[in-house]
Amino acid sequence: MSEEKVKATRPIKASAVANWDIETDVAVVGFGGAGACAAIEASDAGARVALFELASAAGGSTALSSAEIYMGGNGGTRVQQACGWSDSSEAMVEFLKASAGGRADEAKIHNYVEHSVDHFNWLVERGVPFKDSEYKQRAIMALTDDCLLFTGSEKAWPFRDLAKPCPRGHNLEVVGDNGGPLFMKIMTENVEQRDIDVHYEARALTLIIDDDSGKVCGLVVRIDMQERFVRADKGVVLCSGGFVMNEPMVKKYAPELLRCSVPIGNPGDTGTGILMGQGVGAAAINMDEGFVSVPFYPPASFTYGIFVNAQGQRFINEDCYHGRVGAMLLKQQGDRVFLIATVEDYGDYEKISYLSASVAGTGETVAELEAELQLPEGQLQHSIEFYNRHAANGQDPLFHKSDEWLKPLEGPLVALDCTPGRGAFLPYFTLGGLDTLPSGEVLTPEGDVIPGLYAAGRTAAGIPRRGEGYCSGMSVGDATFTGRMAGRAAANA
Amino acid sequence: MSEEKVKATRPIKASAVANWDIETDVAVVGFGGAGACAAIEASDAGARVALFELASAAGGSTALSSAEIYMGGNGGTRVQQACGWSDSSEAMVEFLKASAGGRADEAKIHNYVEHSVDHFNWLVERGVPFKDSEYKQRAIMALTDDCLLFTGSEKAWPFRDLAKPCPRGHNLEVVGDNGGPLFMKIMTENVEQRDIDVHYEARALTLIIDDDSGKVCGLVVRIDMQERFVRADKGVVLCSGGFVMNEPMVKKYAPELLRCSVPIGNPGDTGTGILMGQGVGAAAINMDEGFVSVPFYPPASFTYGIFVNAQGQRFINEDCYHGRVGAMLLKQQGDRVFLIATVEDYGDYEKISYLSASVAGTGETVAELEAELQLPEGQLQHSIEFYNRHAANGQDPLFHKSDEWLKPLEGPLVALDCTPGRGAFLPYFTLGGLDTLPSGEVLTPEGDVIPGLYAAGRTAAGIPRRGEGYCSGMSVGDATFTGRMAGRAAANA
Repeated sequence: MSEEKVKATRPIKASAVANWDIETDVAVVGFGGAGACAAIEASDAGARVALFELASAAGGSTALSSAEIYMGGNGGTRVQQACGWSDSSEAMVEFLKASAGGRADEAKIHNYVEHSVDHFNWLVERGVPFKDSEYKQRAIMALTDDCLLFTGSEKAWPFRDLAKPCPRGHNLEVVGDNGGPLFMKIMTENVEQRDIDVHYEARALTLIIDDDSGKVCGLVVRIDMQERFVRADKGVVLCSGGFVMNEPMVKKYAPELLRCSVPIGNPGDTGTGILMGQGVGAAAINMDEGFVSVPFYPPASFTYGIFVNAQGQRFINEDCYHGRVGAMLLKQQGDRVFLIATVEDYGDYEKISYLSASVAGTGETVAELEAELQLPEGQLQHSIEFYNRHAANGQDPLFHKSDEWLKPLEGPLVALDCTPGRGAFLPYFTLGGLDTLPSGEVLTPEGDVIPGLYAAGRTAAGIPRRGEGYCSGMSVGDATFTGRMAGRAAANA
Repeated sequence: MSEEKVKATRPIKASAVANWDIETDVAVVGFGGAGACAAIEASDAGARVALFELASAAGGSTALSSAEIYMGGNGGTRVQQACGWSDSSEAMVEFLKASAGGRADEAKIHNYVEHSVDHFNWLVERGVPFKDSEYKQRAIMALTDDCLLFTGSEKAWPFRDLAKPCPRGHNLEVVGDNGGPLFMKIMTENVEQRDIDVHYEARALTLIIDDDSGKVCGLVVRIDMQERFVRADKGVVLCSGGFVMNEPMVKKYAPELLRCSVPIGNPGDTGTGILMGQGVGAAAINMDEGFVSVPFYPPASFTYGIFVNAQGQRFINEDCYHGRVGAMLLKQQGDRVFLIATVEDYGDYEKISYLSASVAGTGETVAELEAELQLPEGQLQHSIEFYNRHAANGQDPLFHKSDEWLKPLEGPLVALDCTPGRGAFLPYFTLGGLDTLPSGEVLTPEGDVIPGLYAAGRTAAGIPRRGEGYCSGMSVGDATFTGRMAGRAAANA
């Protein structure tokens, strides 16, 4: 069977398989956060499990992430309670619904919230360390070993009016941005402690389906340059990440993301799992949506600043999550977006920021800055005059930034060029994938279950659905949780 | 075979067909603009053709439309030339690329433009009447029998800077909004003049595929309450419209559209063709995109007005096409969008407008209106002061509205509530469909051709890809042209 003939979207019929090289109950594709959790749960449910990873080690995109995990509700996780937060399931459901807007999968949200504290406990039982402490600064990630932090727009308008804010990001007990590697180290140990048949450097090529029923009954993987036929009696769980590293696929489904600077993910995020699912009739949904970061804090002091578009208009409450800024930034007309702050708040930006935006202009006065930025005369002056007048009273009538981050902007001022394509670091990833039930069972466009096929993590369209409502911790939270759901469902099939 | 068992996304194997009820070369699904043109071309290319229409008469969404047809390039159509317009292919290509932005299918655009004057001539040869005259008013449609008009944002920023503007909407020679019925009457006569086997009240259920090759070799239709098996030796052409009438499908792929008021289409626009394609492995793309109209002209005098969001900020050059206003309107934050005009320009709005937006406030002065609309104090005053000051000089530094539509807005003023969900008529339709080659051949997510399957019109993702770049006439232009391409390709298979 030549490489040219094996395509992800062309499943192979079981009758064409002369010999099964590997036989198992549950075959899991991808050894990142989702795949690890799927394999562990399937194994603990009594199934034989084979796990196939493209790379030569476990990790996936989870290992590259901060591995904050979004959990709460049910009165609170152990950490939330220890830090004095009593999180309600209702608030968490409402927040997640608002976060996803019209894209929300309510069944998934309810299932996720209902079992969220259980999930925390499950992770702890498997050795994941969380300290009973809170990180109270505004940051993209905690660089201490503190656990609990706000990782989204919970406290920001309009979300704070829709659901009682509560911090739900759980950072691992490790110093620095090292949560991802630690998390995957622990999960890998858990896999190794079990009778799970792990194959590294194993590229999943396509699914195998039963000739008559169409049930997914295995897959083809390439190991040592050879196609191997894997029989999976109970099912195949696709946990092979998203498609952000497949540029033609991003161009086809979510071309707006390509205006930004750097795709975030591991090299295996080429959409293979999504394509394999589509090949057996699965629906790929939410494929246009993505996450775009404008990592303008640290310094947190930039939150006192304002974003303006080419018209010199504000367009966002700057105390929201950086991903929401990214989503709104892409909606602006014209060819410029600036972050404007006082030189005082600029502080040690160059040392501590991830943004890498260049200084587009400075000014002792707003008029001077406006002229330097070539904004329409009077627009920035009006925006800042209006902003300052109300900020002095702790109010933001336009976007309801919280008074914690309101103060008049007095010169000297500085403007950073946050325009996509002009040097600022604007990383992005995709939020689309296969349509699944909360169990991880994969659905056709008409909502029928495809027997024998499961998907989890970024291969599926999960809890996070929109950049404008995204929170750090949603991806690893969703990946690990849906991995468990899918692994268990496949084992019990 | 019970109804429950036949699903669009579950194709049937040819080996399961005991008896073919109908045998043809090319089976066309849907007798709207695309299906009619596909059937005519396939027949003229020498193929036996069977045409299946769900309704009891021809028409589809084309008959419900104004049937403006977007054509030009190549120096101009007969009408363009007669009206003194020398349209270049380069300008038309550049405009269509800008219109679709990152979603553009360049191969399709080049093919469409290259053959656009041929298409005009083909339509004329089939009896479609176009008068050598131009309709010069700003309107959503020509209600006279004049032909040529600007039907998009060609003359508006930013498009006018990207491609030389030229009117390309071709209205049929018929008084009133009667182009669609006339067009389909003529196309139906053309079908009837040929040896085309037409079946009305025939519901396409699913495709039939060859057991071994997977080639699409027919379809199942329900006629007189019975499943009939249709063998199509050369191929099946899906021309069954979009999915705007399938609310769960819109909610799944393009939920933002559901904020608007009325789906535009015919009752058969339930996505059947798209689902049938997906069932045999086709990619559905551009599924999140749609067209949303804010039909604020007539009266054309409202173009002198301004749109503002809940922050009292302008967000659009109001001389652009109403669909672009709709796209930008949905991007605004906050809970209100208003159209503000002088009472003088309001004129006979209530008699002639399609918008049906209610009056949200009036004011002798801007301050009075601002207070009545409960906009943040000073914002609307600034927006109008800035606008007026520059309008007096024929300039719009923010959105570059053309000076033809610039004049200071002096009280008394009126504001119409254009907020989605508050009574304004904001019709919408979808712009997603199967991924196809310019030939109409349907593609898998990996870009492979699915043998025997073609799609055209709104069942495919065609020339129009984004609401923000849409022009009237793109849909019927694309449907009729791609129908021809697909019919011919299938006949020659």
